[in-house]
Amino acid sequence: MDLSSETSVFKRKPFAAFDELRHLPVDLARDSIRNGRYRGHTAGIGLGLLQGNVVILPADYALDFFRFCQRNPKPCPLVGVSDTGDPKMRTLGKDIDIRTDVPLYNVYRDGELDAQTADITDLWRDDFVAFVLGCSFTFEEALMAEGIRLSHIEDNKTVSMYRTSLTAQPAGPFTGPIVVSMRPMRPSDAVRACAVTARYPHAHGEPIHIGSAADIGINDLLTPDWGDPAALEEGEIPVFWACGVTPQAAMKSARPPVCITHAPGRMLITDVPGWAASGGHLGQLV
Amino acid sequence: MDLSSETSVFKRKPFAAFDELRHLPVDLARDSIRNGRYRGHTAGIGLGLLQGNVVILPADYALDFFRFCQRNPKPCPLVGVSDTGDPKMRTLGKDIDIRTDVPLYNVYRDGELDAQTADITDLWRDDFVAFVLGCSFTFEEALMAEGIRLSHIEDNKTVSMYRTSLTAQPAGPFTGPIVVSMRPMRPSDAVRACAVTARYPHAHGEPIHIGSAADIGINDLLTPDWGDPAALEEGEIPVFWACGVTPQAAMKSARPPVCITHAPGRMLITDVPGWAASGGHLGQLV
Repeated sequence: MDLSSETSVFKRKPFAAFDELRHLPVDLARDSIRNGRYRGHTAGIGLGLLQGNVVILPADYALDFFRFCQRNPKPCPLVGVSDTGDPKMRTLGKDIDIRTDVPLYNVYRDGELDAQTADITDLWRDDFVAFVLGCSFTFEEALMAEGIRLSHIEDNKTVSMYRTSLTAQPAGPFTGPIVVSMRPMRPSDAVRACAVTARYPHAHGEPIHIGSAADIGINDLLTPDWGDPAALEEGEIPVFWACGVTPQAAMKSARPPVCITHAPGRMLITDVPGWAASGGHLGQLV
Repeated sequence: MDLSSETSVFKRKPFAAFDELRHLPVDLARDSIRNGRYRGHTAGIGLGLLQGNVVILPADYALDFFRFCQRNPKPCPLVGVSDTGDPKMRTLGKDIDIRTDVPLYNVYRDGELDAQTADITDLWRDDFVAFVLGCSFTFEEALMAEGIRLSHIEDNKTVSMYRTSLTAQPAGPFTGPIVVSMRPMRPSDAVRACAVTARYPHAHGEPIHIGSAADIGINDLLTPDWGDPAALEEGEIPVFWACGVTPQAAMKSARPPVCITHAPGRMLITDVPGWAASGGHLGQLV
C-alpha cells in the first residue's frame, strides 16, 4: 500500500465533512468517498438507498463463507456477491467499485486487524470475491419513519453491540458467536418494531431476542463489546437484533490469510432502494 | 447405476401409494421414500413441513450456482446448502440424506436429461454440493388455509409453468429465462394472494407478475412449457409466481458434466416447518 501517493491526494483535496455529503445526490457523495475525501460513517448519506456490510475474501474461502451466510441469514443477509476477481458490484449499482467506494476499510491478516485504508486498489487480487450484507441502517430508517425513537441516533452515538451465547451455524472454518445490536424501547414501541423490521429480512429482519439480556449470555448491558453504552430508561426493555459484525467474529476463527471488510459504520452505499431489503427483488433492480 | 439390484428391492417391497404416505408421520413417510418404495409427488405428504427443489453440482460449479441463486432470489430461494462431499442436509433435518430422501431424481449429463432414478448413492461424489431451494407447496398451503381455491390442486393437475421473456441475472455459466408458474384467480383473491405469499420470501414470495401474459412474453396460456393447461374462468386473471424450474433452464446453458435434480413434483421433505420460508429462521431450526 503506497501511503505516500494517498497522502498527496489528500494534500490536493481537503477532506469532506459529513454534513456536506448528507445533502449531496448519491453519485456526488460517492465521488467524495471514491477519491478519498470522505472516510466517515455513512448513516444518513444517500438516504433511502440500501447500505451494506462488506467482506472480501480469496476464492478459496468464498464457498464456505457463502454457506456461512446462507446458514445464518439473520446476522448475515447477503444482498450482493461479486464475480471472482471482478471489483464491480454489478447487481447493486451501475458503477460501484468495491475497491474504492467504501469510506474506510479494515484489512485483516490471519484473522487479526492489520491496517485501515481508504482505497484497496493496490490490494485487490484476481481471486478476490466481495460479499455485501444488508445492515441495520435500512430498518432504522423504517423505524424512525414510523415514529419510533432511537436513542443512539438522537444522542449521535454508535449502537451497543454484544457477543452472545448463541452460536452461529458453522460452515467450514467459519464459526463463532452471533453478535447482536441492542436498542432500548418502551414495550409498545418494541412490539411495533418487531412488526416493522420483520418486513426487511435482508436487513436482519425482526429481533432475535427481547427482554432478559442474561438469556442470551449478556451479563452487563452497560459494557457492550462494540459501540457505546446505552442505559435503559424507566419502563424500557432491551430489544436485540442480529448484527452484521457476526462475520468479523467468525473471521477470528477462520483466520484467512487476508480478509478486507468495511470499517464499522462506514458502509457501502448502493444504488438499490432500501426496500430491496424486504426480500425477493434483489438482483433485478439495477 | 445397477438397475438389477434396484429391481430386486422392489420385488421384496411393494410400492407405496400416495394415500398411504400422506397419513404417515414424516419419519415413516421418509422411510418409504428412502427405501425406494415411493417415487411419486410429495404435495400433501409431511403437511406443514418445508419442501424443497434439489440441485446437486460438482464443487467447480458450486460458487457460480450459489451466485446465481443469490442474484435470483425469487425463482431460486436457497433454504439449505450441504458441505462439499457431505450428503447430509444438516441444517434442514436431523437425518436427511440427499442421496436417498428424494422420491425420484433427474440425472443430467452435459445439460441433457440422461436418466431417472430413486437413489443416487452410487452416483454420489466427494466433490458434490447439494442445494435445496424453497418451493411453492409452502405458499399453496398458506393460500388454501386462507380460503383461496387453487384449481390445479382441486383438479389434481400439475400447475402450468412457462418460460418468460424475463431474463435471470447471470452468474458464470448460468443464465436463461425466468420460469413462472400461473394460478388463475378472481381479482379479490389475487390481491390477498399477493399479501399472503409475500410473507414467504423463501418460497418464491409475492407474484412476479399479474394480468397480461403477453407482457412477460407468454403468447398462449393454454400451452404451458411444463405442467397441465389451466383455463381462465369468467372474471379470473392469471397470477404469475417465479418458479423453481428456473435453475433447470439455466442448466441447459451451463451444461455441467453432471447435475442431479429432483424430478418435478418429487421434492425433498425437510424437518423444518414451512413457516421457515418466511425468512430469517433458516439454519436455526434443527
